Amino acid sequence: MTDKSRDIEEGTAFTPKFDPDGLITAVVTHAATGDVLMVAHMNAEAVAKTIESGEAWYYSRSRKALWKKGESSGHVQRVKELRVDCDQDALWLKVEQVGPGACHTGRRSCFYRAVPLGRSGAVTLEFRDGDKTFDPKAVYGKS
Amino acid sequence: MTDKSRDIEEGTAFTPKFDPDGLITAVVTHAATGDVLMVAHMNAEAVAKTIESGEAWYYSRSRKALWKKGESSGHVQRVKELRVDCDQDALWLKVEQVGPGACHTGRRSCFYRAVPLGRSGAVTLEFRDGDKTFDPKAVYGKS
Repeated sequence: MTDKSRDIEEGTAFTPKFDPDGLITAVVTHAATGDVLMVAHMNAEAVAKTIESGEAWYYSRSRKALWKKGESSGHVQRVKELRVDCDQDALWLKVEQVGPGACHTGRRSCFYRAVPLGRSGAVTLEFRDGDKTFDPKAVYGKS
Repeated sequence: MTDKSRDIEEGTAFTPKFDPDGLITAVVTHAATGDVLMVAHMNAEAVAKTIESGEAWYYSRSRKALWKKGESSGHVQRVKELRVDCDQDALWLKVEQVGPGACHTGRRSCFYRAVPLGRSGAVTLEFRDGDKTFDPKAVYGKS
């Protein structure tokens, strides 16, 4: 192990490792249930705003813009704990999700379909917890 | 919403969206506790092997190689459930972690440090659940 990797893995300096696009992966779980709500990305500014405010900010790769979760829906995420992984290239946010859900499709979590195991070849997904908890058209004003 | 995005988000065909390097992000949680154990990447072959075997396979970006979790440590991950997110660019594995831990540093989870909230400027990490549960030198045969 190099001194540098020891510092990253065993040290107390927060030195997030952004990818070539300046982004780091953020995994968001529901603080009470442990369910994964979403996987998103943050740039340095989103990380700083999340730390300062205690509410989740991300960077949208499609819209190429910083965004605060819930800025249009009201479904903000109050961060109960923020953790970084061993090599500091991933973040884990345990959040209190305000409102009925985190997913832009109108569901509590983005992970509403399961991949059956023990098969090979084409896979048919199975809906799990797939009921919509809000109407995305009404909340976001678009389909 | 286009027909294509509707198919991806609301359909039952599993069409994982790999990034330009041929990889998809995989979030791994402990099936019983909901704790995030690690974030890794899979290529198409790792996805197929995981589905077929019910044990977790990944792709190492640093070693540029397919690897089965636990192939050297014995700490395999039995996948209890595999889910895909709305736009099919992230996977969530709920696993039973065999052995004392998932992290190459010798810990149960890779997320053993917290980032204090409500601050600005330089951040000092705080260890949480940071005790080593195994000796990585003994398990992996290297430091």
